[in-house]
Amino acid sequence: MNSVTLTAVPGVPDIQPGDDLAAILGDALDRAGLWPADGDILCVAQKIVSKAEGCLIAYDGVTPSDQAVELARELGKDPRKVQVVLDETRRIVRKFRSPGAREGTIICEHRLGFVSANAAVDESNIGAEGAALILPRDPDASCRALALRLAQRFGASVGVVMTDTFGRPWRMGQVNVAIGLAGVPATIREQGNTDAWGRVLQVTEPALADEIAAASGLVVRKNARTPLVLLRGLDWTPAADSRATDIIRKQQEDMFR
Amino acid sequence: MNSVTLTAVPGVPDIQPGDDLAAILGDALDRAGLWPADGDILCVAQKIVSKAEGCLIAYDGVTPSDQAVELARELGKDPRKVQVVLDETRRIVRKFRSPGAREGTIICEHRLGFVSANAAVDESNIGAEGAALILPRDPDASCRALALRLAQRFGASVGVVMTDTFGRPWRMGQVNVAIGLAGVPATIREQGNTDAWGRVLQVTEPALADEIAAASGLVVRKNARTPLVLLRGLDWTPAADSRATDIIRKQQEDMFR
Repeated sequence: MNSVTLTAVPGVPDIQPGDDLAAILGDALDRAGLWPADGDILCVAQKIVSKAEGCLIAYDGVTPSDQAVELARELGKDPRKVQVVLDETRRIVRKFRSPGAREGTIICEHRLGFVSANAAVDESNIGAEGAALILPRDPDASCRALALRLAQRFGASVGVVMTDTFGRPWRMGQVNVAIGLAGVPATIREQGNTDAWGRVLQVTEPALADEIAAASGLVVRKNARTPLVLLRGLDWTPAADSRATDIIRKQQEDMFR
Repeated sequence: MNSVTLTAVPGVPDIQPGDDLAAILGDALDRAGLWPADGDILCVAQKIVSKAEGCLIAYDGVTPSDQAVELARELGKDPRKVQVVLDETRRIVRKFRSPGAREGTIICEHRLGFVSANAAVDESNIGAEGAALILPRDPDASCRALALRLAQRFGASVGVVMTDTFGRPWRMGQVNVAIGLAGVPATIREQGNTDAWGRVLQVTEPALADEIAAASGLVVRKNARTPLVLLRGLDWTPAADSRATDIIRKQQEDMFR
């Protein structure tokens, strides 16, 4: 029977800048008796990768530009946070303050291409006040390094998906999405395949990496320290050159940018 | 250990208008030895519910309006399909034809409130040419009826999520989302809770129903006849009055409508 299991890996400690994340995650897997096997996929929360890579920006050292001060006033935000957001941003897609909201949101095209609220700059669950966590410099590279180290340690070929929690248009709440990939294809192209009745499927392209990321959210809650999820049993074909930016819709094909 | 398992339930036959879906799905669960237990969640593809409820519209009986003819010409679509889309639509959010695309897309606010491509009108995997499948009249009611019948048969309280496959802005590919709910809350409100470091979480609201829907996609592929997925092991609290429309962002809080 076609079955997959997602397990939150317990015992991952608080991560500090400079930590050897692959060793720490490997130890947690080891202690839990969850030894990765060929075809397993590990979902790693962006937060611990950013922490290990020292992507924490203290507001003390941030001098907001005129643009940041202006945006901060308009949206009711800390101008230093806005500056951190702008430093991560290639282009502002939209800015918005809901009626009654404590502060507004800037929808940004991140330097890596992802479109998200406040350029994925995060102030929660970082264990520091007056500071914000930004995305890793190259999430795919971070994933590939983790996959390589874990493969060496456990003698198994695993995929790695780095997840972050994004809101989305039209629908309430947030879901985890993939922002870094090693081995796992961003999408599966079913175009040209036929459906169960032999009709050619026109536009079916399941967003595999995002399905995996969203599924990982089922065993992780924000106030629990479970930034590592093991997914087992998935029927998938590794793609050596997969990159999370493959998930980003080209601007000319995007009606919402 | 916190673990969930998703299993594609085999052996669901092709569904015909008027079929007793609860009986058919119950039989498939029975034959597979997958007897639902308290707290299990069943993900049911919209397609089989629509088929059982006779939501198939033959193009032969459709007379396109002037607006449908005009839109069809602009977007390279069948005017009868466009008419079916318009009949399901409360408001057109955007229309778009990608450079080089065979036909364009109308992003619609469906009469139920969901924003999706072509008002979720579907021509694939329906086993009929010259026809399209529309969403069930009241997906939440369909889910509640299924949940009730399955609870009676198996003596277990289960949640039901009806899923459909939607594209999304900015990101390639499609993911399953929830369009009908019984028992399963649309989102989990973590606002006011504290994170692992005691900092108050401001806007965390995991979209539980959509996480479940997306996860179900991992064991279902479009060209396989597996429209039923059993999810087991999730830590969740039933909400008797949950409705899939709870997932829809209010227009005044939506910067993309």
